[in-house]
Amino acid sequence: MTGRDGGADLSPLGNTPVVILVRPQLADNIGAVARAMANGGLYHLRLVAPRDGWPQEKAWRNSSGADRLLDAAAVFPSVAEAVADLHHVFATCPRPRHIVKPVLTARGAAAELRMICARDLRAGLLFGPERAGLDNDDMARADALVRFPLNPAFMSLNLAQAVMVMAYEWWTAADQTVPRTLMTNETRVATKGELDNLLLHLVDQLDACGFLRNKPKRPGMVRNIRHLFERGEVTQQELRTLHGVVTELAIGRRQRGRLEKDGEE
Amino acid sequence: MTGRDGGADLSPLGNTPVVILVRPQLADNIGAVARAMANGGLYHLRLVAPRDGWPQEKAWRNSSGADRLLDAAAVFPSVAEAVADLHHVFATCPRPRHIVKPVLTARGAAAELRMICARDLRAGLLFGPERAGLDNDDMARADALVRFPLNPAFMSLNLAQAVMVMAYEWWTAADQTVPRTLMTNETRVATKGELDNLLLHLVDQLDACGFLRNKPKRPGMVRNIRHLFERGEVTQQELRTLHGVVTELAIGRRQRGRLEKDGEE
Repeated sequence: MTGRDGGADLSPLGNTPVVILVRPQLADNIGAVARAMANGGLYHLRLVAPRDGWPQEKAWRNSSGADRLLDAAAVFPSVAEAVADLHHVFATCPRPRHIVKPVLTARGAAAELRMICARDLRAGLLFGPERAGLDNDDMARADALVRFPLNPAFMSLNLAQAVMVMAYEWWTAADQTVPRTLMTNETRVATKGELDNLLLHLVDQLDACGFLRNKPKRPGMVRNIRHLFERGEVTQQELRTLHGVVTELAIGRRQRGRLEKDGEE
Repeated sequence: MTGRDGGADLSPLGNTPVVILVRPQLADNIGAVARAMANGGLYHLRLVAPRDGWPQEKAWRNSSGADRLLDAAAVFPSVAEAVADLHHVFATCPRPRHIVKPVLTARGAAAELRMICARDLRAGLLFGPERAGLDNDDMARADALVRFPLNPAFMSLNLAQAVMVMAYEWWTAADQTVPRTLMTNETRVATKGELDNLLLHLVDQLDACGFLRNKPKRPGMVRNIRHLFERGEVTQQELRTLHGVVTELAIGRRQRGRLEKDGEE
């Protein structure tokens, strides 16, 4: 649309919801919206009566490379025309209105959008103008309102931030990443047996240097050391390093010839 | 810190994680971060060596009223000093690094932060500079990395957007909003019996106008109408409106004196 050729290679994968900005005011925000959409895998942008016309250079400058979303953005004179080819429309609405309408959380909306799109129906998400939000006629065209659970003491949400939350929820609704893992690179998580070898090595050296010479206390002391090392995942590589640490500390002691005297430190 | 007196009344509720911006470059972004923090109920901001010094007027101009977070922001010369009084530190890290470290999703991190804070331990979230992100020494001080599941084809995430995602997850981790509800205002969801009354009224009028005069097809036609009306929740108020619609359409027909002829339309 503006003849640009830069930006990331953003090609829609499958059927994804359309983001519809209704009477957006600031081109900066439209650019930031495109960036947030790309972050969450939303590719289709529609603009209803942008206040300052379209295209606007500022949008491209603020999109951090999400140019192709802006290049492909379609402009409509009214919400009715922007949603005419869609099967489902959700409208973001931060504030309660005096209307009868289903209300979804962002997460609930994302889950429903995934189901709608999986059925090959076309879905759209309406976002209102920066200051006023959507008007009542806009919202009457929506299947449901989307209201983000956020701090009621501070509801002023930037337009691109609102799109970010929905784009993020859209993406995570289909994401299988486990909530916690251990990045180990070329090594791997150590087994209990491998950890035991380190503890045997350590206890052996602690016996040699006299640290465990109090016989009645020895079992408890060994157990306390074990408790510490069993607490989290250790990698094979880290165990090798710790074996080296124990060996070198023990050799150092012997070389300094202070084996017996320093045993209690 | 700047003598301002405006902005929203943002008082921390309970123990909440500290957001630590490491070597942030743009004051605009610091302001946008404060706004995003307030949206998600995060109140404590620390800055490590902000590039252009602190305070910066631009931050306040871009915070949309989250002034008090900026007023209370503490500045530290190093990450070590910024985290010294904390018990747990998570570091956001969009890209894989060659280190051995637990990796959390944003949602996983939020759940763990809730548990940490509930135990009255102090937690912090590190966010790196706009361009380079955190360096390896910064990350070595973290318990775990946080990596948002987002579109791998477009990972360029604005600093305030990254904070928004974490603040949003922090808030929703303790939020009980049901994913879908029906906002009914002063009316309420109709019962099956109330819906039945409407359908009896409608079928009665459809019998009267001849729409259901085909006896073999009548049960199926009535059932199809019922299928449509049973599909979603209807309110008492909407049922009253529909009763009125049916009555007025029927009266209109009679008044036009075309009762029999138009029965099939």
